[in-house]
Amino acid sequence: MRLFLSVASLLLLLAPTVAAEQPNIVIIFSDDLGYGDLGCYGHPTIKTPNIDKMAAEGMKFTTFYSAAEVCTPSRAALLTGRLPPRSGMCSDTRRVLFPDSAGGLPASEVTLAEALKAKGYITACIGKWHLGHLPEYLPMKHGFDSFYGLPYVNDMDRVPDKGPKGRPAFFDPKIEYWNVPLMRGEKIIERPADQHTLTKRYTQEAVKLIKEKKDTPFFLYFAHTMPHVPLFASKDFAGKSARGIYGDVVEEIDWSVGEVLKTIREEKLDKKTLVFFTDDNGPWLLFNEHGGSAGLLRDGKGSTWEGGMRVPGIAWWPGTVPAGVTTQEMASTMDLYVTALKLAGADVPADRPIDGFDITPLLTGKGKSPRDTMFFYRGTRLFAVRHGPWKAHFITQVAYGKGAPTPHDPPLLYHLGRDPGEKFDVAKDNMEVVKQLKEIATKHSKDMKPGEPQLEKRIPPEKK
Amino acid sequence: MRLFLSVASLLLLLAPTVAAEQPNIVIIFSDDLGYGDLGCYGHPTIKTPNIDKMAAEGMKFTTFYSAAEVCTPSRAALLTGRLPPRSGMCSDTRRVLFPDSAGGLPASEVTLAEALKAKGYITACIGKWHLGHLPEYLPMKHGFDSFYGLPYVNDMDRVPDKGPKGRPAFFDPKIEYWNVPLMRGEKIIERPADQHTLTKRYTQEAVKLIKEKKDTPFFLYFAHTMPHVPLFASKDFAGKSARGIYGDVVEEIDWSVGEVLKTIREEKLDKKTLVFFTDDNGPWLLFNEHGGSAGLLRDGKGSTWEGGMRVPGIAWWPGTVPAGVTTQEMASTMDLYVTALKLAGADVPADRPIDGFDITPLLTGKGKSPRDTMFFYRGTRLFAVRHGPWKAHFITQVAYGKGAPTPHDPPLLYHLGRDPGEKFDVAKDNMEVVKQLKEIATKHSKDMKPGEPQLEKRIPPEKK
Repeated sequence: MRLFLSVASLLLLLAPTVAAEQPNIVIIFSDDLGYGDLGCYGHPTIKTPNIDKMAAEGMKFTTFYSAAEVCTPSRAALLTGRLPPRSGMCSDTRRVLFPDSAGGLPASEVTLAEALKAKGYITACIGKWHLGHLPEYLPMKHGFDSFYGLPYVNDMDRVPDKGPKGRPAFFDPKIEYWNVPLMRGEKIIERPADQHTLTKRYTQEAVKLIKEKKDTPFFLYFAHTMPHVPLFASKDFAGKSARGIYGDVVEEIDWSVGEVLKTIREEKLDKKTLVFFTDDNGPWLLFNEHGGSAGLLRDGKGSTWEGGMRVPGIAWWPGTVPAGVTTQEMASTMDLYVTALKLAGADVPADRPIDGFDITPLLTGKGKSPRDTMFFYRGTRLFAVRHGPWKAHFITQVAYGKGAPTPHDPPLLYHLGRDPGEKFDVAKDNMEVVKQLKEIATKHSKDMKPGEPQLEKRIPPEKK
Repeated sequence: MRLFLSVASLLLLLAPTVAAEQPNIVIIFSDDLGYGDLGCYGHPTIKTPNIDKMAAEGMKFTTFYSAAEVCTPSRAALLTGRLPPRSGMCSDTRRVLFPDSAGGLPASEVTLAEALKAKGYITACIGKWHLGHLPEYLPMKHGFDSFYGLPYVNDMDRVPDKGPKGRPAFFDPKIEYWNVPLMRGEKIIERPADQHTLTKRYTQEAVKLIKEKKDTPFFLYFAHTMPHVPLFASKDFAGKSARGIYGDVVEEIDWSVGEVLKTIREEKLDKKTLVFFTDDNGPWLLFNEHGGSAGLLRDGKGSTWEGGMRVPGIAWWPGTVPAGVTTQEMASTMDLYVTALKLAGADVPADRPIDGFDITPLLTGKGKSPRDTMFFYRGTRLFAVRHGPWKAHFITQVAYGKGAPTPHDPPLLYHLGRDPGEKFDVAKDNMEVVKQLKEIATKHSKDMKPGEPQLEKRIPPEKK
């Protein structure tokens, strides 16, 4: 009996250590998927049974924000926990990195991969990078042990003299029009990348990684190339969805999510793996049927209206994240940085401002989100602020094209609880709220120290 | 052994009879709820855990249509299985019945209640009627054993000289402005009805009915008054939802659905009760935050765009309707008429055109929907036709107000699979489809014999 008690006591003593075991972290990051494009977010004709099941087994966020309205700054913020201006990874003219860009994520930034690697994690980047394609900026210079994917966006390299100019090439995309390279590590292994099979091959890489690495904690940053235009699906999915090629592509990503979760279960890692599914920014509405839908939210990619930055967000970690919960609590991709560091037992960098929060209490069903405020930048400028349910737009601008920024004073004010579609400006009836949001914006802007701009730098023509 | 076999054989012989047992039929019909207003249809700030659970335990339709864009014709079609012009329950001027209307659903129509009553069902109407408030048109003249609810809409009777005129009274509704009567059977029992507690009291009636009637099959037509403006919630729900009063009201309906399903389970009726939740038409967008949202669908109540007639649709019947299924198959409220009759062993009236289909194969997970076509009437005129994924608009008109009908030749054509938001007219690239839809419309219109118009009839002033 004494022995039995001793063993029990020992087990009790061990329990906190077991609970504090470093979990695997998997972030699945799609590209240009809209808030309304998944079954569990209400889409009528795209079938996403695997992601819907992930939501049913986990926590679905209805108020989850990417940190920017376009790709490069959004990814920089996810991997650094910092608003894009701090790292210099945003711009008012070029907006994202291009194949002629000479800039990239500065080495001085502490990426999620670096921080987790320092705590013993195996770190892998599968999919789209887009934080600098020159050798000094590639994933393996930023803390990743491995990289398999594209250095930038799938629409950025065209084969000269192939296919129609401009948008028509997107609406009838043929693989021979596009010239984006596929890399492994720091080497180009295929050019043009066969985009038809990218989602499938990324998934095979992810499954392989999960199977191989199961004795060491791992961080998998799985950043899909799709559903960014031009859209390509494998033959198992092409022509299958009621939603056309856009639906085919999203349904293949849904399949991919299913494969990842299935592998995690099969390897008995489900009790020690946090998987978070989200997206880099809203749907690219310019591309009509080849772009997604933000559901009832206003506008899409490129815009600081809700449709540009509110994205699907689903957390899955059986036994730790409660099942079947829908939360309206506010959170952001930048919070994933801080939360992952905390879960891994890493310190959050103390020598610089960090814009993320630890949402572990929310994820574990034990508390609320510490985030009550969100800053909406377009490029280097603060366009809007949300605090609680209220959002003030100080500047608005059409998502793409020649429209100039339109300042608003008083700002446009929306109550996102009662009016999630940002239809009814209620500033004049709520001047106290306007005042409070102005103060929050002023204080924030005063404290903001932008980093060296990276997106304007270009490779000199003679070096191209 | 011989005896044992005989008993087994007897049981086998009995089995088909047991399987064919008449199920209870419950139709829960909300008023002006939008396609996008439930959690399981993607709303970010309205919480509907009970309806979401109903969907998770049953079948969620993404392509379910009410039979009209406004209230009276939609209800007439649900209860007769016939498009509104056939019963004369539609109009191009008044659109619905009013307190000064002298018309109503003709006695010659065979309502769902009459047909089920003839097969031994107890029939109850709880909630809003709106198919004629003169004595000869009330629910108990149309096959219902009991009625507890409002004869018409909650915004139609104003107390003279109380409150502001017109829309401001809706945006700051006080109970003393409104004078709609509450009836039991054919008697007015409360006037004005206390609208704060209508949802709660309807629910208590429904729960009582289910508890009392469990030895006889029953048909419960539970037609909520809410969320039609003016919006009122009980004190348990008022001020609770992030979506404001509209959300409070929908969350109380969600509670009500939960109470109904809970009672059905407690009474052990769940294996023999089909519950269908749906709505009469799209959200009334005119009323801003007091109106709902059609999600990514275009427009709302009063319109033949998808947002006016595509509504939430959820079937629940544990053990018979498969759990956790989302279907894109097309169905309509008129199909509930035919399906309920079939399930009850009743014949569908053979002496008149019926526009519904038996969707039992779909509901039981054994087949597809027999419906491949939907006709979109506004008042007496055919505005649009859907066939498969294609929808042609021959006429469009603003939902409310002075805009005239705009004919289109060629019609506007949308592919609702690829473009559920009806954004991209693709008629000129699909003239073969246009031709086919025109032929369907022409044939349908040739065969349509409208009934005597009911909605223009008015009570002579001296009798008011």
